[in-house]
Amino acid sequence: MPSSSSKARPAPAGELAVRTERRTQLLDVTAAVAKMVQDSGVQSGICYVYVPHTTAGVIINENADPDVAADMEDALARLVPKDAGYNHAEGNSDSHIKTALVGTSATIFISGGQLELGRWQGIFLCEFDGPRTRRLRVKIVPD
Amino acid sequence: MPSSSSKARPAPAGELAVRTERRTQLLDVTAAVAKMVQDSGVQSGICYVYVPHTTAGVIINENADPDVAADMEDALARLVPKDAGYNHAEGNSDSHIKTALVGTSATIFISGGQLELGRWQGIFLCEFDGPRTRRLRVKIVPD
Amino acid sequence: MPSSSSKARPAPAGELAVRTERRTQLLDVTAAVAKMVQDSGVQSGICYVYVPHTTAGVIINENADPDVAADMEDALARLVPKDAGYNHAEGNSDSHIKTALVGTSATIFISGGQLELGRWQGIFLCEFDGPRTRRLRVKIVPD
Repeated sequence: MPSSSSKARPAPAGELAVRTERRTQLLDVTAAVAKMVQDSGVQSGICYVYVPHTTAGVIINENADPDVAADMEDALARLVPKDAGYNHAEGNSDSHIKTALVGTSATIFISGGQLELGRWQGIFLCEFDGPRTRRLRVKIVPD
Repeated sequence: MPSSSSKARPAPAGELAVRTERRTQLLDVTAAVAKMVQDSGVQSGICYVYVPHTTAGVIINENADPDVAADMEDALARLVPKDAGYNHAEGNSDSHIKTALVGTSATIFISGGQLELGRWQGIFLCEFDGPRTRRLRVKIVPD
Repeated sequence: MPSSSSKARPAPAGELAVRTERRTQLLDVTAAVAKMVQDSGVQSGICYVYVPHTTAGVIINENADPDVAADMEDALARLVPKDAGYNHAEGNSDSHIKTALVGTSATIFISGGQLELGRWQGIFLCEFDGPRTRRLRVKIVPD
């Protein structure tokens, strides 16, 4: 029966809301995304993470030592200073530029019903104009 | 009949050609991509945008205030100057490097037959070695 | 029979191991990924490349003139210096930051049984903390 095929239904999808605490902050969201994958029951496929904002993005990087995230926040602030004679009147051009550099989506394989992250990898929401409540959309597509 | 399954056919795909006007220019292509999604009839899925060039990329960022795109063009020029003692003889190493930083593909969810962009998000072709005619490939995969 | 559907099986996937020779090195892996696509027999679909490391990433850029890769290695070293008062004690914060800038995944369309790269595009593993043996995961999803 074609109508019973899993491909005839929308892929499992959901949204996380997270609260950031600082203007610039890398927030580890790995556990919440991993739980959505486990809850979906999908054994093999792809997990897409999408940030629907223009001053926040997403990266995959080390979550073992929190100093790595702090160093990254500092390095991005040096690369793209908050004040640099921007035209945009809202005072957050640096936030938009940082978001363009890191990107708004991430793609992670699913294998054995789990996110197939590397040993040291975690998923981070990148807040560049907080503190705010941010949303993270997740879509889980079985093979 | 397996052969009538939507998964047995190639996903809807197409190509846009756009003309850029300056050496460095962020060009809003949201409307054209959104139309391809609507024309595909796909209700739920993923829209992939791919730039087959090495001196042009694609980002998702704010398209409400054109100053944001202008600030981003300026900031990238400061980060990666046009002349910096490069080896590559064609004089466009900066264009290649900027392309590597922003990336050549974007992934956007489709929901309710529409691109599921955030409220302020648009899709921009990033020209870094124009003016030229550039191509943008779009692939629309239903769930 | 639903169980005979290609969508009921995991998508073709595999892993490449590559050896890098320098601390910072863009390594062309196009031929190896193209071979995996050809071996999969998939005619139309998407090839996902994923790097499961936190100090190595992946980009798509020019592979005709090796000077482009060398210029990119130099430019990234200027943008993110090796020593800049980082907190992370392992001495490779620059490697993590560069990885966040270029990203850990790439998405390439498959058409006519081949990777649909642009004329001058190649796929590069970006080593930022070598020399090491690195892994590259590849997943090939038919339409």
